[in-house]
Amino acid sequence: MEPPYLLFLGDVPDQLAAKTASGIVHWRPERCFGQLRLPGCRADLGLPDRTVAEARAAGVRTFVIGVANSGGILAESWTESILEAIAAGMDVASGLHMKLADMPRIAEAARARGVRLLDVRHPDRRFATGTGRRRSGRRLLTVGTDCSCGKMYTALAIEREMKRRGMKATFRATGQTGIMIAGEGVAIDAVVADFISGAVEWLAPDNEPDHWDVIEGQGSLFHPAFAGVSLGLLHGAQPDALVLCHEPTRRHMRGLPHQPLPDVEECMELNLRTARLTNREARFLGVSLNSSGLSEGERDRLFAELGERTGLPVVDPFVTGVGALVDRLA
Amino acid sequence: MEPPYLLFLGDVPDQLAAKTASGIVHWRPERCFGQLRLPGCRADLGLPDRTVAEARAAGVRTFVIGVANSGGILAESWTESILEAIAAGMDVASGLHMKLADMPRIAEAARARGVRLLDVRHPDRRFATGTGRRRSGRRLLTVGTDCSCGKMYTALAIEREMKRRGMKATFRATGQTGIMIAGEGVAIDAVVADFISGAVEWLAPDNEPDHWDVIEGQGSLFHPAFAGVSLGLLHGAQPDALVLCHEPTRRHMRGLPHQPLPDVEECMELNLRTARLTNREARFLGVSLNSSGLSEGERDRLFAELGERTGLPVVDPFVTGVGALVDRLA
Repeated sequence: MEPPYLLFLGDVPDQLAAKTASGIVHWRPERCFGQLRLPGCRADLGLPDRTVAEARAAGVRTFVIGVANSGGILAESWTESILEAIAAGMDVASGLHMKLADMPRIAEAARARGVRLLDVRHPDRRFATGTGRRRSGRRLLTVGTDCSCGKMYTALAIEREMKRRGMKATFRATGQTGIMIAGEGVAIDAVVADFISGAVEWLAPDNEPDHWDVIEGQGSLFHPAFAGVSLGLLHGAQPDALVLCHEPTRRHMRGLPHQPLPDVEECMELNLRTARLTNREARFLGVSLNSSGLSEGERDRLFAELGERTGLPVVDPFVTGVGALVDRLA
Repeated sequence: MEPPYLLFLGDVPDQLAAKTASGIVHWRPERCFGQLRLPGCRADLGLPDRTVAEARAAGVRTFVIGVANSGGILAESWTESILEAIAAGMDVASGLHMKLADMPRIAEAARARGVRLLDVRHPDRRFATGTGRRRSGRRLLTVGTDCSCGKMYTALAIEREMKRRGMKATFRATGQTGIMIAGEGVAIDAVVADFISGAVEWLAPDNEPDHWDVIEGQGSLFHPAFAGVSLGLLHGAQPDALVLCHEPTRRHMRGLPHQPLPDVEECMELNLRTARLTNREARFLGVSLNSSGLSEGERDRLFAELGERTGLPVVDPFVTGVGALVDRLA
C-alpha cells in the first residue's frame, strides 16, 4: 500500500467500526492525508475531511477503506466513492472479507484505469512449504493466552520503541488490521494450511544480523479453533524472543464459554518448548497485559504477582510502555 | 465417490506411480470392477483389464484416476479416456493437484452429461471454525514422528480389525490417497488455516456412543513445515485414543536434512499434552512401526526396547497386525 492515504470511513455507525482506520492514524500518522466520510458517518479520526479531488491534487496514492464490520461487507453505498478514487488514479485497499476484485464495476474500472485493488485479507501469492532453516537477523514474536489480547498492539509498540532507540526493526503483520497499518504483510489465517510456516518464513526473511523483525502473533496454542495457525506461525517465525500477551479479565477463550483460559506459566512453557523446534535459543522477554479492565490497585497487584511468578518484566504498553521488554535485549 | 470403480492407470511408467489405485484395491477390493491401462503402461493392479464400454455395461459409477505423479499433472494423453467415461455417464475422481474442473473440454463434457468431477485434493465446501465442544462417539487418531511414516496404513488396519471384531468403526480420511480409498474425506492440508480443526470436527461428527471414528493423521508436531496442520487436526479430532506411528530407519525429518527426528517418548508426550486441550481423557494405545527397513533381528530388538520404554504394545501392521492395539480398547 503506497502512501499517502485517503482514509475512507463510509457511513459507519460508530467509532468502533472505524478501528482499522484509527489504527493506521495511531501507528502511521505520517501516511495519512485526510479522511473521507459519507453523510451519516458517526466516526471521526481527528484528521481533516478531504474530497477525492483534494487528495488527488495532494498526491495521495491509496484510497484506504478503513472500516471493520462483522460480515466483512463492502456496502453498495460506498461504490461511487471507490469508483471516484479509481478514476483519480488511486489504488484501493480493503481488509474486508468481501473482495473488491469480486465487484464487477470496481474490478472493471480498476483494470481500465490501471490501478491496483489490494484485498489484504486474501493472500494473492503462492508460498513454499516451511523448512525451519535458520535465517540471519533476529526475530521477536508476540504470543497470547487467547485471541484478541494485545498481540498486534504490543508488537507495534515494541517496533516503535526499538526505532526510538535507534535499533533496526520492522513490524511484520499477520492479520488484516496489522497489514493495513504496516501497508504490507500476510493474513496468515487465510493461507492454505500446508503453507502456514512457509508463509511466515517468506514474511520475515534473512536480514542484517542486528535487525529485528517484530512479528505479530495470532490466536493461541490453547485455542481449539486456531492453535494450528499459532503453531505454524511460531515455527515459521523461529523467534529469538517471545512476549506473552494476556487479557486478565477474560474468563474463557474468546467465543467459547466452555473453554477455560490457560495459566500464564503453562502458556509460556508450551510456547517456549514448541518454539525450540526451529530456534533452540528462544526465550521470553516478559509479559504484556491489557489491563484496561482493571482498577489501578488491581493492576499494580497483578503486575507484582506476575513479575514474581515469571521472574520477568510485566508491562501494559498503553500504561507503562514496553521499554522494560526492549531493555532485556540490550 | 460411488462404487463400483473402473481404475484408470493411464500410461504410468512403474508400479509406484499407481500407488493410489493399489491402495484402493488393497483396502476396498469389493469396490473395484477392473483396471484400464493405456499402451505403454508398466503398472498392474492384478485386476481384469476392462474397457469403458464393459464397465458401463456392468454398472460402474466412477472412473477413478488412480495415479500419483510428482507434479500432480493430468496428462494430455488421458483426456480421450476421461471423455469416454463421461460420455458413458460415469463420475470422474482424481487426487491429483491439477483439477479436472479446470480442463475446459472435461468440464464442459461433464456439465453437458450431468456427471460429477471429484477433485478430492481440493475441498469444495466451506467449514466453520472449530469449537472444541465435546462430541458423542469415540475417536482414534494416528499421529507420527514425521510425515509418511504409516499413519494412513495404520488407521485403515485398525478400522479393518475393529470391523472384524464386530465393532462399529469408520475410517476418516484426511489426505488425498486416504480419500480415494475411503471414497470421501477432507484433504486437511488444503483447507484454509483458520478452519483446520473445524474441518475435522465436521469430518468426525457426533456419533453413537460405541462408534469409533478412526482418523488418519497428517504430518507431525515436530515437522517445521506441517506441525500447524497436525495440531489443528489433533484438536479437531479430540481423540480418546492415539497411536504413534514411526519409521525407525529415518535419520531426519522428511525433506529436511538439518532437522532431527524427535524421540518417540518426547513425541508421545507433546501429542498427549496438546490433545488434552479438547479431550482430557486422551491416551496412547501403543506404537505402530514401519519396520520394512529392518532385519528380523533388528525388528525384534526394537519392538522389545520400545515396549519397555513406553510400557505399551508395539506393532507393525504389515507384520503383526494391529490386534494388540485394539485389545486395549476392550
